[in-house]
Amino acid sequence: MATYQAPVNDFKFLLHEFIDLQRYANLPGFADATPDLVDAILEEGAKFFENEIQPLNQIGDRQGCTRHDDGSVTTPEGFKEAYKAYVEAGWGGLTADPEFGGQGLPHVLGFAVSEMASSANMAFSMYPGLTHGAYEALRHWGSDEQKQTYLPKLVSGQWTGTMNLTEPHCGTDLGMMRTKAEPQDDGSFAITGQKIFISAGEHDMSENIIHLVLAKIPGGPEGIKGVSLFLVPKFIPDENGDPGTRNGVVCGSIEEKMGIHGNATCVLNYDGATGWLIGEPHKGMRAMFTMMNAARLGVGIQGLSQASVAYQNAVSYAIDRIQGRSLTGAKAKDKPADPIIVHPDIRRMLMKQKAFVEGARALALWTGLMIDFAEKHPDPEEKAKADDFAAFITPVVKAYLTDMGFECAVDAMQVYGGHGYIQEWGMEQFVRDARIAQIYEGANGIQALDLVGRKLPEGMGRLMRRFFHPVDAFIQDNAGDAALQHYVMPLAKAFARLQSATADLGPKMMANPDEAGAASTDYLRCVALVAIGFMWAQIAKKAQEKLNAGEGDAQFYKSKLATARFFMDRMLPDVHAHAAKAGAGAATLMALDEEAFAAF
Amino acid sequence: MATYQAPVNDFKFLLHEFIDLQRYANLPGFADATPDLVDAILEEGAKFFENEIQPLNQIGDRQGCTRHDDGSVTTPEGFKEAYKAYVEAGWGGLTADPEFGGQGLPHVLGFAVSEMASSANMAFSMYPGLTHGAYEALRHWGSDEQKQTYLPKLVSGQWTGTMNLTEPHCGTDLGMMRTKAEPQDDGSFAITGQKIFISAGEHDMSENIIHLVLAKIPGGPEGIKGVSLFLVPKFIPDENGDPGTRNGVVCGSIEEKMGIHGNATCVLNYDGATGWLIGEPHKGMRAMFTMMNAARLGVGIQGLSQASVAYQNAVSYAIDRIQGRSLTGAKAKDKPADPIIVHPDIRRMLMKQKAFVEGARALALWTGLMIDFAEKHPDPEEKAKADDFAAFITPVVKAYLTDMGFECAVDAMQVYGGHGYIQEWGMEQFVRDARIAQIYEGANGIQALDLVGRKLPEGMGRLMRRFFHPVDAFIQDNAGDAALQHYVMPLAKAFARLQSATADLGPKMMANPDEAGAASTDYLRCVALVAIGFMWAQIAKKAQEKLNAGEGDAQFYKSKLATARFFMDRMLPDVHAHAAKAGAGAATLMALDEEAFAAF
Repeated sequence: MATYQAPVNDFKFLLHEFIDLQRYANLPGFADATPDLVDAILEEGAKFFENEIQPLNQIGDRQGCTRHDDGSVTTPEGFKEAYKAYVEAGWGGLTADPEFGGQGLPHVLGFAVSEMASSANMAFSMYPGLTHGAYEALRHWGSDEQKQTYLPKLVSGQWTGTMNLTEPHCGTDLGMMRTKAEPQDDGSFAITGQKIFISAGEHDMSENIIHLVLAKIPGGPEGIKGVSLFLVPKFIPDENGDPGTRNGVVCGSIEEKMGIHGNATCVLNYDGATGWLIGEPHKGMRAMFTMMNAARLGVGIQGLSQASVAYQNAVSYAIDRIQGRSLTGAKAKDKPADPIIVHPDIRRMLMKQKAFVEGARALALWTGLMIDFAEKHPDPEEKAKADDFAAFITPVVKAYLTDMGFECAVDAMQVYGGHGYIQEWGMEQFVRDARIAQIYEGANGIQALDLVGRKLPEGMGRLMRRFFHPVDAFIQDNAGDAALQHYVMPLAKAFARLQSATADLGPKMMANPDEAGAASTDYLRCVALVAIGFMWAQIAKKAQEKLNAGEGDAQFYKSKLATARFFMDRMLPDVHAHAAKAGAGAATLMALDEEAFAAF
Repeated sequence: MATYQAPVNDFKFLLHEFIDLQRYANLPGFADATPDLVDAILEEGAKFFENEIQPLNQIGDRQGCTRHDDGSVTTPEGFKEAYKAYVEAGWGGLTADPEFGGQGLPHVLGFAVSEMASSANMAFSMYPGLTHGAYEALRHWGSDEQKQTYLPKLVSGQWTGTMNLTEPHCGTDLGMMRTKAEPQDDGSFAITGQKIFISAGEHDMSENIIHLVLAKIPGGPEGIKGVSLFLVPKFIPDENGDPGTRNGVVCGSIEEKMGIHGNATCVLNYDGATGWLIGEPHKGMRAMFTMMNAARLGVGIQGLSQASVAYQNAVSYAIDRIQGRSLTGAKAKDKPADPIIVHPDIRRMLMKQKAFVEGARALALWTGLMIDFAEKHPDPEEKAKADDFAAFITPVVKAYLTDMGFECAVDAMQVYGGHGYIQEWGMEQFVRDARIAQIYEGANGIQALDLVGRKLPEGMGRLMRRFFHPVDAFIQDNAGDAALQHYVMPLAKAFARLQSATADLGPKMMANPDEAGAASTDYLRCVALVAIGFMWAQIAKKAQEKLNAGEGDAQFYKSKLATARFFMDRMLPDVHAHAAKAGAGAATLMALDEEAFAAF
């Protein structure tokens, strides 16, 4: 049976020492995030997610969700009660706008809580996760009336939200959408069509579900430019704002999936359902991207979260399980064999997981801080810089944290040997659950193309420079520090390789757009490795400072230094292999025709 | 719904042109393998596994195996009938000794048929697969009486076999085994204990099951040196050799696993079951390794097989699914979108799968040929060389083909986007099924340690040279051929890096045995990449010759050249990253103590 212990010490280190939240206490929205409050939230969160939510993870996987003949859906045993407790404790509104009942705390803290929630139970955490996405879209693009009617209930979690994009024949290419929205005399629209893969699409945990639905208004522009966003509540609010008439949207079936069984992935059938336009007609994609960008970071954190909890269990198993003897002579002489953590190859897997998890966590929180700046920073220059950085790094966080999150969950399962393959131990569930994060909210190949094809050229490389400049500055500032040479030099080398790969790519892409696609995934990996290398170099610097000053828990900082060293030695150098592949060009990819692929 | 088309053309190319079986027609056991017979077997096999076995793959996954209160087990719908057809067609005896009813055909052909069987239905193919392992062990180590009683029925498939090694507290470390075998007056032994993870341990497909069981004879040596191998039939053969008295071995439960649900993975409880010693007392591991080495190659082929079938489906989907437009302008102008195979990043995934599958298939068949030589070559020198090569390459085939097989199945699933995550499409089953192959028959970390710690130093590098010499000779012979420079030069570079990594590792391992473990997995990858690079370079040479001569299907050979080029450009250079990691040393892996890992 898998367990979970929220990494509260690491969160405290990152928030108080690495990011040093207190530095920003003068910024709007940060004043309330005192160290004491932050610690209290982390500790309460740990208690809540460890004790109330994690124990439902395996139950959710086994039972899944059940659809009844009337289209209603029952969630796994305990989910409803746990969600009630979640709402009562106010977790849903942590970072939401106080105007609508939120606590208005920084996103950087919200990201930490999201990681805990998802580590404890990814399928459960998706219900509030999607609600948060709906909240973001409505807050940005909804009318005042829509905001007043829906936001307080989405913030409290009394009502939940969904995102409806995909149709059977269109996922990535939403321009082919068929769901239509016909204008009605009262200003509403009648929505008709079928949406698939709708996470949290129907369930019994909240009294209402607010669907945000992309559809086409007949007569509008062709393709993606004719897509509008609509709000379609399961129950239409009555004059008191309470759930009233049942709307014409019904769950037609629940998908049988590889994992995240505790979350109901629905086919939703809209049959003249009443919906209201959000924002302007035919500008639905703009609004959807508001939702999607937040969701993409959330999905990146899901990847990280599964690696984190899988790693913890792999460590416990490697310490408990005795098997064989150390190559350098027996270590546990009182036992018939040594714990398998003595074996270097087991440690190779564990160190990789540790270095990824802690480095990716730092990157996620740094990105969270930038999201806060982009939203709240009073200096327009800083605000714009942060917004650029977030736009640049979002596809990187989404794709790299989910690819590596999956890979680390696979490695954690491997530590268990045969037992990892048995459902009871819970390790294979992490692998199955983590797998979806590489796919949804834009498959990782789409993220890579977003990075290379859109974010990289934007503003003549302006977004990119928001990332390159601080890395460069850090290297310049610290290159002379002998104590840091094992961290700064590898980073400098990797960064130089990333810069040359970037310089290489620009003209090639201009000459042949296929070069962008051919380089995209490997280029994204280069950016990700440098970004996490940058995190580790800064963490090492901070840890060294603390050790020099004799402050805090020396073991903690020494462990950070050793893990940083592992990252620099064994993970960061992959930049070179990825850069070589990114530079290998499109020709070998495009050489074969369809028939050659299909000639088995 | 996933489909499968046996890659008959590729098998024919590899057997007739790449390996050129006819060259060996003068060797014992090869004379029967005429081109016509080989083709007939490949074509019949394709028909049988595509039509009779593959349609049961998804059913097997959904239904799994059911254990009843009396310990009996029902396999999924259709398995029993399909197995009957398998036995009647004689597939089980293809490569078995004619003395016991086999057809005595070369293993190299048997490997091709194994790949088909496993691609069609991995869970199903494990029943005969384990039978073959039991056949090998008995044939090498059994008494004449044991051979006469059991082998004909194992060869025909009338009876099936199992391997019983693992106990709850010991998997890799079999020295801690507790199952005991007490000598009886009649020369038999009473076997008592519990074995877990026994694939095909109980089922309804054959009239008897022959368990090969490791156990300890009380009073024998401690640890691994006191382990003996026993034959324990489910039904003890009567005087006519027919199944008689029910023996004291019962299936206690079936494991709930991540995949291969169609195969019954059993807990077997032995309660004074009657068993007979196979070979000498306390020499059980030697006999078990006979079984295990064959099984390890079989597991490597399983990894390859899942990549192969997953790749085929990914190709079909990428050609059918329209979504978005090519970056270089619409390709399918008559359709609302282009097939996704136009996108370079989709092709990156498909080319990787294709290059792995076809290259690994060549390596598997070459290894099969060496197994044939090791068994049957009349020249003792050639025989010894082949045996050395097989010993060296076995852990490489097992670990690399299963790691990459899994990775390719994951990529193939990714091509499907959201649909890949839905059970109905069958792609996630390939991932779940492939996952076990990285674990069983010695987890891949154990394979790496076997390579580095045992095979590499053996005979002062003699085994290794059986691989290095032909690679070196090929490079020397072809370095001057301008038409082959894109294939031979990258191979030469990668091989040089492997040689330097090898030279580096020797003295380090001597000084500190942990260096072997620290380097093992990455070193194995280097060997694997060079081995498959060697295959691709030879394939390219053959394809070039055929094109120059204007013989055969030019499209086929051009496709081989393009795929070889992809392997050289985008896969083989990973040798450098792995060699760097193999050389990174043990220190960073061993730096942290247990507490530091567990301080979340």
